[in-house]
Amino acid sequence: MIGRLNHVAIAVPDLQTAADQYRHTLGAEVSDPLTLPEHGVTTIFIKLPNTSIELLEPLGENSPIAGFLTKNPAGGVHHICYEVEDIHAAVERIAADGYRVLNRTPKMGAHGKPVVFMHPKDFSGTLVELEQA
Amino acid sequence: MIGRLNHVAIAVPDLQTAADQYRHTLGAEVSDPLTLPEHGVTTIFIKLPNTSIELLEPLGENSPIAGFLTKNPAGGVHHICYEVEDIHAAVERIAADGYRVLNRTPKMGAHGKPVVFMHPKDFSGTLVELEQA
Repeated sequence: MIGRLNHVAIAVPDLQTAADQYRHTLGAEVSDPLTLPEHGVTTIFIKLPNTSIELLEPLGENSPIAGFLTKNPAGGVHHICYEVEDIHAAVERIAADGYRVLNRTPKMGAHGKPVVFMHPKDFSGTLVELEQA
Repeated sequence: MIGRLNHVAIAVPDLQTAADQYRHTLGAEVSDPLTLPEHGVTTIFIKLPNTSIELLEPLGENSPIAGFLTKNPAGGVHHICYEVEDIHAAVERIAADGYRVLNRTPKMGAHGKPVVFMHPKDFSGTLVELEQA
């Protein structure tokens, strides 16, 4: 069912510092910042040959990553995202196996594709996003 | 400098439960468990089309992931691993920029290749492994 690892999202307290580190020290290809007010984050993409890293900085007062950064002030891996061919079939399968999907109705993700998030307590303490491929 | 994302490592309290979930619910290709006494872990590889997920369970009394699981009993992303072409050049560059490398002399990693780990406090709260490609 799951396909490619679409991205690893890392929440960071300071986007520019993290981006500079990836660009200059680690020599990676780093995008310009992209503000996503509807998602409550500003993001910078690190393009690797086989996948992407997404650096996330809170944007606005109700950012969904604000709580994470309160608990982890230095930052940390916020979620990982797998691609699936049929997101509705994926949700049905996961729910049928007794695991919790945080939003049973897919919502529009940061890449303009439908996404769901699974409950981290049901998936080894890891917040997993599924994105329609 | 950094190339492919070699793997994402997830520490889990129960390897078989996590592996079953990836195999049956998420429909992924899952390896048999591999005990690595010299690394203090038992690992199962989840093979994705573009990278791997490594599930890690503590092995023995001095497992390097035991402390992580004490802090995160449900599990969680333990580290991410980037490939580099020249690990010695990578260490020099990172140190020259003032960031801490936990083991300046590369050690043999779980894949039989030299690896170093960078200090998570210097890298957005994320434990980053570099592996010689």
